[in-house]
Amino acid sequence: MESFQLHPRLEKDSFLVERFDKYQIRLLNDCRWPWLLLIPQQNGLSELHDLTITDQKQFALRTNHCAKAMMQLTKCEKINSGVLGNVVPQLHIHVIARNEGDPNWPNPVWGFETTKPYADRDRDELIAKLRSALT
Amino acid sequence: MESFQLHPRLEKDSFLVERFDKYQIRLLNDCRWPWLLLIPQQNGLSELHDLTITDQKQFALRTNHCAKAMMQLTKCEKINSGVLGNVVPQLHIHVIARNEGDPNWPNPVWGFETTKPYADRDRDELIAKLRSALT
Repeated sequence: MESFQLHPRLEKDSFLVERFDKYQIRLLNDCRWPWLLLIPQQNGLSELHDLTITDQKQFALRTNHCAKAMMQLTKCEKINSGVLGNVVPQLHIHVIARNEGDPNWPNPVWGFETTKPYADRDRDELIAKLRSALT
Repeated sequence: MESFQLHPRLEKDSFLVERFDKYQIRLLNDCRWPWLLLIPQQNGLSELHDLTITDQKQFALRTNHCAKAMMQLTKCEKINSGVLGNVVPQLHIHVIARNEGDPNWPNPVWGFETTKPYADRDRDELIAKLRSALT
């Protein structure tokens, strides 16, 4: 089987949190909102309905599990999740922690102003906490 | 069991397409993009992970089925789907047909400028086509 190739833009803009058999979880490098990406490790996917029925169900459960863990960890008020892929076509699901008064609240975060990268230490701390919360 | 109460804002901004046992599908009254809402008919939900595991799987399959049907019907290039709920907390999933060059492409559609209601005839025609595509 052809090995999975992560889109270079996703590679550049995010950090690996956990890699599983069928998908990986990454942290977007933008400290304005805690923001995860779930990426099925299969080339050529761009829509959720491109997955098999079994994978659609599994992937939904994993996404919702991430959302719940993120909410518990960050104490956020709301999760925003979604699949857009208008810029990067490789299938990736966004799971974002939102709070009243955060940047661009209550509007969506995608494409809003300029990303604000994490300080190395903050990123490492958050990734460690996320790993613990997700398992 | 307490009967389901659709949020007044969702009622006002969209039209019923199909009602099933556990959820309903509605068309958002904004002809800038073909835009469906899937709404589980259960009071007090605001996150996908509030659903039971069985319902999470079912609801994911229904959402993805709607996305595929919408793509086939509208010949759109991309589906944007998501759960935000920052303004209307009642759980509702967006399924939106997107094309290069459409309003606000490639950025998200939520909160973008002013809604453009359907002409009655266009709405009725689209709803009839959607009903047929979804079943």
